[in-house]
Amino acid sequence: MIGRLNSLIKKTQAPICVGLDPTLNNIPPAVLEKAFAQRGKTLEAAASAVWEYNKTIIDSIYDLIPAVKPQSAMYEQFGIPGLEVFKKTIDYCHEKGLVVIGDVKRGDIGSTSAAYAAAHLGKVALQESFISPFDEDFATVNPYLGSDGIKPFLDVCAKEGKGIFVLVKTSNPSSGEFQDKLVDGRPLYELVADKVNEWGADLMEDGYSEVGAVVGATYPEVGKAMRKLMPRTCLLVPGYGAQGGKAEDIKDYFNEDGLGVIVNSSRGIIAAWKKDAYVKYGADAYGDASRQAVIDMIEDLKTAWKR
Amino acid sequence: MIGRLNSLIKKTQAPICVGLDPTLNNIPPAVLEKAFAQRGKTLEAAASAVWEYNKTIIDSIYDLIPAVKPQSAMYEQFGIPGLEVFKKTIDYCHEKGLVVIGDVKRGDIGSTSAAYAAAHLGKVALQESFISPFDEDFATVNPYLGSDGIKPFLDVCAKEGKGIFVLVKTSNPSSGEFQDKLVDGRPLYELVADKVNEWGADLMEDGYSEVGAVVGATYPEVGKAMRKLMPRTCLLVPGYGAQGGKAEDIKDYFNEDGLGVIVNSSRGIIAAWKKDAYVKYGADAYGDASRQAVIDMIEDLKTAWKR
Repeated sequence: MIGRLNSLIKKTQAPICVGLDPTLNNIPPAVLEKAFAQRGKTLEAAASAVWEYNKTIIDSIYDLIPAVKPQSAMYEQFGIPGLEVFKKTIDYCHEKGLVVIGDVKRGDIGSTSAAYAAAHLGKVALQESFISPFDEDFATVNPYLGSDGIKPFLDVCAKEGKGIFVLVKTSNPSSGEFQDKLVDGRPLYELVADKVNEWGADLMEDGYSEVGAVVGATYPEVGKAMRKLMPRTCLLVPGYGAQGGKAEDIKDYFNEDGLGVIVNSSRGIIAAWKKDAYVKYGADAYGDASRQAVIDMIEDLKTAWKR
Repeated sequence: MIGRLNSLIKKTQAPICVGLDPTLNNIPPAVLEKAFAQRGKTLEAAASAVWEYNKTIIDSIYDLIPAVKPQSAMYEQFGIPGLEVFKKTIDYCHEKGLVVIGDVKRGDIGSTSAAYAAAHLGKVALQESFISPFDEDFATVNPYLGSDGIKPFLDVCAKEGKGIFVLVKTSNPSSGEFQDKLVDGRPLYELVADKVNEWGADLMEDGYSEVGAVVGATYPEVGKAMRKLMPRTCLLVPGYGAQGGKAEDIKDYFNEDGLGVIVNSSRGIIAAWKKDAYVKYGADAYGDASRQAVIDMIEDLKTAWKR
């Protein structure tokens, strides 16, 4: 799947994924009001508003980008109807030719991790039938439980031609509380990076590994070091835009071939209609605002990318 | 919620939670065959078999124990129908008076973590309406992202009177890869334990904190040290039974008041019908086998508990 992601990045010239992280605050009021009027103040109503919002945004931007990253928390908060929309969003993005990174940050051990891997990337066996429950292309995974938690995902990646992104150094202010702690003089996230190399060694496609790493845009020096430490790893980079990361900050995250990075923006794209720069579109044309925000992000990143 | 859990532990004299972690392998063939015959080889069929299996087991054991721990992976693997049964199981356990620990091991940051907390422990606001999406009583949480990931859960715990269990030292063989790494001479899990104390300091109920810790049964010396380091923390202890942990191993996990521990068993109870000791019940009486396995576990733990 990393080969497919890289070829879409080259085709679109956009090392970008759009975080489909709907919150009711960011859905234009008219969309919300219609849903609540039709279905009452219910989870079904909220989920139907999320679906209309997602679909409009996807329709507005799918030709510009290689990938999207739906965040499972934002769907789980609307219960079963929310998760139905999570699945519907994944399927619709696939119809539109997008790579789907399920931002699920799952992590457990043994048969439990295998169940998560089957749920999100693989198939569940019902006697002789095999069904893909959610069917993302990549999933984000938490490393705290060690290799026991990751290996079941690797098995599914090998079988299904899919990939994972392991949390290495996250973009948030408190990420250093544990991730930066020095172990024999090296920060913990470097030990995790070593494991990312090891876990991905047998899962290479066109020179890149199916095992990627999450490295925030907000710690540029760390990103530069991670690039060197994991040369064949795609870095999934949150923290651009709303969290403060700039194109300049991530220029050293890229490899010489222009690959090795996929920068995420969530609010900066899907809630563009609320930002000063795009408010002229008006709330009803939120899809157009999102499209322009993607175009602007691509231009902005070119300053980092085309060295 | 920790006060309620402790009072149920005292009432039942059973510091036990039963892991409701259904896999098709552990569901008696007759239950599965009936479901597949009625609904084909579908996720709906698998989920309906899981529901029948869970309900029978809950009906057989609810009066003996304080709590259950459904593992979300085992429901997510059956897609939306699986998650419907996850929710149905939570609600049914509540009807039966059980405390429900959602073993979801979620962990993210800021608004995303807040969405997970709302999904599993809290309420989602739909304008002036508030709805509980999944409504567990406790959730397990991964600490790798630091306080930013935990604080939104603490806010919901304070508001709703609920709790969390933070992964500190897990029971699996590779848990040491990162958790045991020495930071200034102390293993990382001790740093996490310090944070557990800090996070729970303002969330005390009857002398115990709403912020518990996951500490595996398979590392007895660690458990003993964790007891001392987190005196007012309830330890959720996986690894008893199938993973090799014994009653003797966890005797030092308990406080003098007999509290401070909840030992989980999953396969050992829900798949008791497959074990030599209970095979006499026959596959159709799997609920009776589970009940006897719980009774035996309570007896076994008394050797550790009643010092």
